[in-house]
Amino acid sequence: MKYDEMDRNGLLELEKTLKEQYEAYKAMGLKLDMSRGKPSNEQLDLSMGMLDTLHSLSDYMASNNIDVRNYGCLDGLPEAKRLMADVMETRPENVIIFCDSSLNIMYDLISKGMTHGVMGSTPWMKLDKVKFLCPVPGYDRHFAITEYFGIEMINIPMLSDGPDMDMIEELVKDEAVKGIWCVPKYSNPTGTVYSDEVVNRFAWLKPAAEDFRIYWDNAYNVHHLDFDRIHDIPEILELCEKAGNPDLVYKFGSFSKISFSGSSIAALATSENNIADVLGQMKFQTIGHNKINQLRHARFFRDKKTVMEHMKKHAKIMKPKFDCVQEVLDRDLSGTGTGNWTRPEGGYFISFDSMEGCAKKIVQLMKEAGVTLTNAGATFPYGKDPEDRNIRLAPSFVTVKEIRQAMEVFTTVVRLVSVEKLLEK
Amino acid sequence: MKYDEMDRNGLLELEKTLKEQYEAYKAMGLKLDMSRGKPSNEQLDLSMGMLDTLHSLSDYMASNNIDVRNYGCLDGLPEAKRLMADVMETRPENVIIFCDSSLNIMYDLISKGMTHGVMGSTPWMKLDKVKFLCPVPGYDRHFAITEYFGIEMINIPMLSDGPDMDMIEELVKDEAVKGIWCVPKYSNPTGTVYSDEVVNRFAWLKPAAEDFRIYWDNAYNVHHLDFDRIHDIPEILELCEKAGNPDLVYKFGSFSKISFSGSSIAALATSENNIADVLGQMKFQTIGHNKINQLRHARFFRDKKTVMEHMKKHAKIMKPKFDCVQEVLDRDLSGTGTGNWTRPEGGYFISFDSMEGCAKKIVQLMKEAGVTLTNAGATFPYGKDPEDRNIRLAPSFVTVKEIRQAMEVFTTVVRLVSVEKLLEK
Repeated sequence: MKYDEMDRNGLLELEKTLKEQYEAYKAMGLKLDMSRGKPSNEQLDLSMGMLDTLHSLSDYMASNNIDVRNYGCLDGLPEAKRLMADVMETRPENVIIFCDSSLNIMYDLISKGMTHGVMGSTPWMKLDKVKFLCPVPGYDRHFAITEYFGIEMINIPMLSDGPDMDMIEELVKDEAVKGIWCVPKYSNPTGTVYSDEVVNRFAWLKPAAEDFRIYWDNAYNVHHLDFDRIHDIPEILELCEKAGNPDLVYKFGSFSKISFSGSSIAALATSENNIADVLGQMKFQTIGHNKINQLRHARFFRDKKTVMEHMKKHAKIMKPKFDCVQEVLDRDLSGTGTGNWTRPEGGYFISFDSMEGCAKKIVQLMKEAGVTLTNAGATFPYGKDPEDRNIRLAPSFVTVKEIRQAMEVFTTVVRLVSVEKLLEK
Repeated sequence: MKYDEMDRNGLLELEKTLKEQYEAYKAMGLKLDMSRGKPSNEQLDLSMGMLDTLHSLSDYMASNNIDVRNYGCLDGLPEAKRLMADVMETRPENVIIFCDSSLNIMYDLISKGMTHGVMGSTPWMKLDKVKFLCPVPGYDRHFAITEYFGIEMINIPMLSDGPDMDMIEELVKDEAVKGIWCVPKYSNPTGTVYSDEVVNRFAWLKPAAEDFRIYWDNAYNVHHLDFDRIHDIPEILELCEKAGNPDLVYKFGSFSKISFSGSSIAALATSENNIADVLGQMKFQTIGHNKINQLRHARFFRDKKTVMEHMKKHAKIMKPKFDCVQEVLDRDLSGTGTGNWTRPEGGYFISFDSMEGCAKKIVQLMKEAGVTLTNAGATFPYGKDPEDRNIRLAPSFVTVKEIRQAMEVFTTVVRLVSVEKLLEK
């Protein structure tokens, strides 16, 4: 029964039951963290063999006859570029390899935009106003970067097939709009896969600002949950070329959720013009990134095929966790009208929308019961969810058993907070 | 005999002989690179055991119970901080660990100065003029960073015990002066070790700008050539504290010339206030740097004592190379008045000053004979050596035998260019 169709007495009774349940959960003293997209230990174990690919007796010469132990090779080893290009569905000459994770690359490109503009444009620090478009709900660390640099962020609603393209096509007519954050496949946190039409409209975009770029964070490109139902999206760099927009996109890829999180390799894939522009600036910053780690990755993951086999093992670990979340949500919340949630087929997150004005309270009560979720509001620029509805669920790090516990607390809390909200009226 | 005391006929005869010698060297088809401070393969071999410290069967938990394979730990592993603090002569709480090499850290701090100022000061991009003091000759990559950001660079003469402190104390009265580049021990390229007095005067400096920092790049801290004659300098952070100037210095350290160049770990050591300021900004940039590499370093190099033993092995490889450079210079150029050079007891470089107006020509002729040296001018801001005298010699990468060859070409070229210069008059 939909809760908003219940009478006051029914709601009061339900509130009492839910409160008792909640107190019982609280008494269990849980301590679970479902706040971040951290791989589980089991997933990390999958890549341990990579550490054996380079040891004291190894050959440490890269295919271009560079000793990986010494300085040099600003753009990355040829074998690392080949691997990344294969996974990112582009050509090695369109790739630069970076270290650790792709977040650093995005930060760095925004930072360079501020101080030097993009490809010789006016540095953004010299402009009165710089704006970025932010599909919401989205990735908090994207929004944190643009906020840190004082860039004004504009919310773009995320629809079922990607962000609202009508709105985007209208807004990029403003020359102050310099970029948009996108996670095109298994979006953080909704799991949305951009449709072919959306990707095409992005490629054909005609922004007023010549230094506008699409920040295409394809973080979950090969992170399917079920390899019998994998989603592919059109390759955007190629489409941009066809559309006469070759320099429009910075595409990001990372092994952080393939090998070791934060100790992997990451890459920028973009047009040859952009590559030249970025390398021309990078040379002041570094002599080259960790090539030992690049060679280690190239030797362990030879090509996309190897990576896909490896990702199937990740999926085997991840799928039961996502299934468990869905199962408890379906069982406990279906038909109550207390929330809607997504059913991603890849990535790391499930997005939950509560009744208006309930998300903060739900996250707070969860915390008091020992289950840490991502802060309510975090999925919006400035941490402000205008309707206080969105909650990101991140089931990767905990076990299925823990997820079941956590989700049972969650559905109780959602129902309790919803009932209380309805009783306020 | 000093060449400038020779008569014209003597000079012409000498020119003829030297030209013949030079042509003979050219005919040898040498191909040697003495342009950069790259360790030799033999030196890199010293650290191969480090690659065995973490393999698929290893314990990958850090001392703070963090799994190094997963996200987190923005400031670095406790054991990496302890190791770095020990080598950098400071406390672990004053250290942040970064990846790859220290150049990245310096770039990043200047970049943050441009966009966000230092500890809340006005962003430098918003100021009409920002200036940096640059002891010369100095490190080209330092100057390249400040040039990239459009910062005006002011040459400060390097004296025998460090940069000209009278001049520095005067210039920092200008609020537009926001920093100074220093390599305090075995300076690049002169090998100068700053005297106690110079280090003290730095600590007691009273710059007009509150966001002025000393960029103290102690890259060659433990890179002695002879461990019976090692040089120590006063620890600047401690002195700054005593002087009531606790936040004045950013100190940099790196394992790039201890373990693997560009694939090592690096660190910033500074006051607690500066650490808080930097971490408060870093959190937008990264979730944390490569901890697998940090743990590998901490397990292989346990403390400063281990590092010192390791550096003795480096010294055994480096010392004969430096000796060879000195030997050929002494033998061929002493008393000719064609140049002066330094006699470093550590670091990676020897600085050579030719007669005025000869350096470019010398480097050019060396190149034509197959020996690449660092570009003349590179040791000065904007690549402009006002007297065209300074040449940096980098003997680390090549063998002693190759150094002997290269230096014999060098002394021939120096004499030839000097004689031609004298004949012009």
